[in-house]
Formats: sequence, structure tokens, C-alpha cells
Amino acid sequence: MKEHEYTHYVNYYETDRMGITHHSNYVRWMEEARLSFLDSIGWSLLRFEEEGVVSPVVSLECRYKKTTTFGDNVKITVKPESFNGVKLSLSYLMKNEEDEIVFEGSSMHCFLDRNGYPLRMKKDYPEFYESLRGLLE
Amino acid sequence: MKEHEYTHYVNYYETDRMGITHHSNYVRWMEEARLSFLDSIGWSLLRFEEEGVVSPVVSLECRYKKTTTFGDNVKITVKPESFNGVKLSLSYLMKNEEDEIVFEGSSMHCFLDRNGYPLRMKKDYPEFYESLRGLLE
Amino acid sequence: MKEHEYTHYVNYYETDRMGITHHSNYVRWMEEARLSFLDSIGWSLLRFEEEGVVSPVVSLECRYKKTTTFGDNVKITVKPESFNGVKLSLSYLMKNEEDEIVFEGSSMHCFLDRNGYPLRMKKDYPEFYESLRGLLE
Amino acid sequence: MKEHEYTHYVNYYETDRMGITHHSNYVRWMEEARLSFLDSIGWSLLRFEEEGVVSPVVSLECRYKKTTTFGDNVKITVKPESFNGVKLSLSYLMKNEEDEIVFEGSSMHCFLDRNGYPLRMKKDYPEFYESLRGLLE
Repeated sequence: MKEHEYTHYVNYYETDRMGITHHSNYVRWMEEARLSFLDSIGWSLLRFEEEGVVSPVVSLECRYKKTTTFGDNVKITVKPESFNGVKLSLSYLMKNEEDEIVFEGSSMHCFLDRNGYPLRMKKDYPEFYESLRGLLE
Repeated sequence: MKEHEYTHYVNYYETDRMGITHHSNYVRWMEEARLSFLDSIGWSLLRFEEEGVVSPVVSLECRYKKTTTFGDNVKITVKPESFNGVKLSLSYLMKNEEDEIVFEGSSMHCFLDRNGYPLRMKKDYPEFYESLRGLLE
Repeated sequence: MKEHEYTHYVNYYETDRMGITHHSNYVRWMEEARLSFLDSIGWSLLRFEEEGVVSPVVSLECRYKKTTTFGDNVKITVKPESFNGVKLSLSYLMKNEEDEIVFEGSSMHCFLDRNGYPLRMKKDYPEFYESLRGLLE
Repeated sequence: MKEHEYTHYVNYYETDRMGITHHSNYVRWMEEARLSFLDSIGWSLLRFEEEGVVSPVVSLECRYKKTTTFGDNVKITVKPESFNGVKLSLSYLMKNEEDEIVFEGSSMHCFLDRNGYPLRMKKDYPEFYESLRGLLE
């Protein structure tokens, strides 16, 4: 199992005046799916927080393919794409209930300690490093 | 001057599928106006944070009178209604550019120290207490 | 069954700088729970939309009892409190996983047709009226 | 003048549990700045709506350089990068009050008519086409 599935039900307050989901919400769903993925491999955000590790978003890419709206169930597949111990890249594929792709995206993350210094996860958190590397092969 | 004026320009992403401002956003605008009011009397949230004071929302009341939407300038008037040193009550009146009332509301706040204990502002922060009491007379 | 249960998982993006759920989000969860309740009695928002009925929020009351934060499962109970065919009042009780009350609130709604005219649901939508009245007894 | 300046004041409700602006909000600020830019060249979203033109976001790129938080004034510069009459690309540069770059991004947009068919703006809206092309030279 190298990818993780997560479903987001589109809320009414996520729609906009065009009648569709406002595009900024997909970025939030990426976060929902990402945290669910990390949780599934034993590294919940709460565990990171306890360890004093923060993992900010370095960059994002979003490609909007089809609209969604209130009441839709959006299936999100998250997958690690690369990880050198310093930067982690994840990809996201979102589909509607007709199995059509509605969104493709990616996010890049780094890992910082309590003082904001970059961590080298291979050395500092080898267990996390190995878990993720294992999903890349 | 016992009341404070603040203007919020309605953003596109604040509208919903009905074509109007989603009702949850008025709660955010109440916060914007409240923090602007506190700043105007010398008690910015940043100052409170430095002092280790937090001021959570205890309760809210919202009455929606007319809809607003993207592009509207909403004029918000904030006014302290009562303050006994423990609980602060503020009222909010929002008008559109035609000077029609679109929203009326109120919020109640308490004041806590770093450890979550209630502060008695008359004793603990007399300067703040007097500023606010002065606006009530 | 006169009340409806709904669970909201608190997302990271719903927290604020105090480390807790921003208070505006509870208003959104009230909507989530309300739409889930209406759906459960056969009156999804999509059905209302097809009929050309809109049901704006007339007023809200929110009482914040305890904080919640990222990762919490908040159990929300929605219950109709009164309904005269013109105005519908609902109450909301939210509890954390320790079964402590975190929030109490209520919302009032009216029903409008496509042209914005008030509907009298007893006459115009007797099936909906009876469903809700049945839950009140 | 080929670029447009817009300032966003960071609201308290835009921060998250890390104490900083949640990354999804930058996407909303891109929209604020974009609509302000289009307004400045005479093509407000309201004008587009009256004409029956919608302009969805096709793709986004976001690069986060430095954190911002509540109380910051973020200066946003928007600039058209390319426009062939079918797809419009805009770039965004955001700076803090110390004039440090906090965010760089871009967005791609297309233009659709009421029925969802792609418009060729050079032919269908030559005035808009020429305005934008003039800013590219």
C-alpha cells in the first residue's frame, strides 16, 4: 500500500457565488488528506508536535480539472513522490463519484525543530525516514 | 467617541452558492471590528498577548437583517455595552452603502491569564478597565 | 427519534493562534449538522433547491463552554425546538470525546421562494411541515 | 504601470495553531489582489458577471518564503505574465513590511460563457484583450 485514500464531503459553506466549491478549499482538503496519510503511517501531527517538529508547506501546485459542489464526495489519493530526508514531496489526485479526475496537485514540505532549524530526518527521525522511503520503492 | 467604525469589503470567497455572503463570515467581521476597536483604545491584541492575557469569546448573538455580497462595503459600528471587570459585552451594528442595517449582534468576552485563570481587570489591568468604563458612561 | 447526531472532526486549518478551534467554525459546524439533520428526514438542501426554496439563517446564538482543537471529534446533537410553519428554531449541543459540553447554540430560519417571498410551510410544503411537527411532540 | 499593488491586513482568524497565517489563505489573497487588479483596468468581476463571463482558476503555483501572522500588512504585486486570448497567466509577489518576500505564486485562468464554452477573448472581448496585451509589452 503506497497510497492513502481519504474522502471529503463538500460542505455548503465551501461553495461560492459561482455555485461551485471555491478553489481555495482544495488546498485545505490536501491538508486533510496529508494529515490522514501521515496518521495512517503512525506519524500523526500530534506526534510531530510532541516531538517539537513542525513541517511547513514549502510549495504547492494545483490543477483544477472539473468543478465540484455541495454534497459531493471527493475521493482523494495521497502518495509520497520523493523524500531525501530534507524535503518531502506528495502528490494528490481527487476524483468525483463518477470517478472523474477533478483535481491534481502536489505539495513540498520541510521539517524544522522547535527553533526553526531544518531537520535531516534520515539522521534525526530515522524511523519516519524509513517508513516513507519504504513507500517510495 | 464611544463607538468605533470599521469597514469590511466583502471578498468573493466569502460568498456562497446562494450568491450572498455566507452567514459564518459575519462572526469573523465582528472579530475584525472588535480587534480594530481594542487597537483604537490602545489595547491591541498583540499588547494583550505580550501581557499574557487571552480574551476568549464566551457567547455570541447574531441577527441577520439583509443579505450582502461580493463587492459590498459593510460599515461596522462596535460599542461596549457593559463591563464589570470580569465580563465585557460588545454590540455590533452593520450597515450597507445605502445605510440599511444588514446585521445586529453582540459578543461577550472574559479575560484569562497564561494559566487559564480568570482575571479581574479592575484590579489586574486598571488602565484597561478605566478606558472601557469611560466609554460606557 | 427527535434528535439527530452528527460528528465533526476538527481540522488543522480550523485552529487559530491560540492553539484552539477558532470560534467562527462552530457556526459552520451548526450548518453541517443542520443539513445532515434535514437530509435525515428526507429534506436535503438539494431537494429544497430543486423546489426553489431557500432557508436563510435569521438569527444565531452561540455559547462557548470549553475549547476544542485539531484532532478532536465533536459530537453534535441537533433538535428542532419550535416550528410554526414560518419560523423554524433548532438547538445544538456539542460534546467532546469525554462527553463534556463544549458548545450550546440555537438557530432560527425562515423559508423563502425563488422571488424572496416568505413561504408558509404548513400550506406550501405540508409534508415538510408535518415531518418537523412530528419531531416536536 | 504594468503591475498592480494591493495590501492585505492579516486577520486573527487567518492564523493557525502554529501561530502563523494558514497557507490556504494566500490563495484567497491572490484572488483579492487579482480582482482588485482587474477592477483597476476597468474589468471588475461584476462587469464580467453582467456579461455572462466566468473566469475559473485553471491552475495555481504557490511558493512560501517566509511566514506572516496576525497584524501584518502584506503588500501584493500582481502582474499579467502571458495572455493569448484563451489563457491568462498572472504572477504574484507578496512582501512583508520589512520588504522581504514572503510568497511568490502564479495563477492561470480561462474564460467561459454562460454555457461553459471557452471564449476567445481577442474576438469576443477585444477591449479586454487589448487592455491586457498592453500591459504585457
